[in-house]
Amino acid sequence: MSDFVLDPRLDRDTTLLMKLGLCQLRLMEDSRWPWVLLIPQRPDITEIFEMTPLDQTMLTFETAIAAKAVKQASDCHKVNIGALGNQVRQFHLHIVARNEDDPAWPGPVWGHGQATRWTPSARTEFTERLLKAL
Amino acid sequence: MSDFVLDPRLDRDTTLLMKLGLCQLRLMEDSRWPWVLLIPQRPDITEIFEMTPLDQTMLTFETAIAAKAVKQASDCHKVNIGALGNQVRQFHLHIVARNEDDPAWPGPVWGHGQATRWTPSARTEFTERLLKAL
Repeated sequence: MSDFVLDPRLDRDTTLLMKLGLCQLRLMEDSRWPWVLLIPQRPDITEIFEMTPLDQTMLTFETAIAAKAVKQASDCHKVNIGALGNQVRQFHLHIVARNEDDPAWPGPVWGHGQATRWTPSARTEFTERLLKAL
Repeated sequence: MSDFVLDPRLDRDTTLLMKLGLCQLRLMEDSRWPWVLLIPQRPDITEIFEMTPLDQTMLTFETAIAAKAVKQASDCHKVNIGALGNQVRQFHLHIVARNEDDPAWPGPVWGHGQATRWTPSARTEFTERLLKAL
């Protein structure tokens, strides 16, 4: 079994916040939405059913923890969760804070317009709130 | 605690295929993509973190089982999984078969164009393959 290596595009588009038991928790470099990724640190996983049952359970608990933290840190109306992988096949789960006045509401965020980079101060402020809520 | 009642819009847009341990497995009435929903039969759930840890685990296993069956029954390139709930707040998880020549690829299916109803024969054929793969 090969070692886990983060996909270069996921590496480019996100910043590591912390490592959980299974996943890397990474911040998407797009300030339009508070948006994090969970990436299981396992090689060669594209679909959820390729993971072991234990890893699936770990992923679920880490998803619930991260989604609750995103909700608390952003005070959003709704959390969106998605594992698409149409463009990057390495398994990654999106957790996105949504509000009724956000630019894509009520549609999905994926493929919507161009990413807007965080300002350093806004990124730091959101990250600190998120890590505190975890 | 109130009883579980299926949201009327989910009821309108989908057809019950079977009841699993936690969820109803329902076919989306849109033949553009083989597309099912998992809906936990629990009242008043909007976000995954509102579910008990046991229900979260059940949901994950049912997600993996259903996603693998969708993949096998459709022979698709990629399975997309998403829990959005921006329009219908009752928690529901989408599992969608995606292909590189489908009308929304590589974007998401949610909000893309208008649903195309299944013909009875195509619905029966896909449903039989899916239930066999479960």
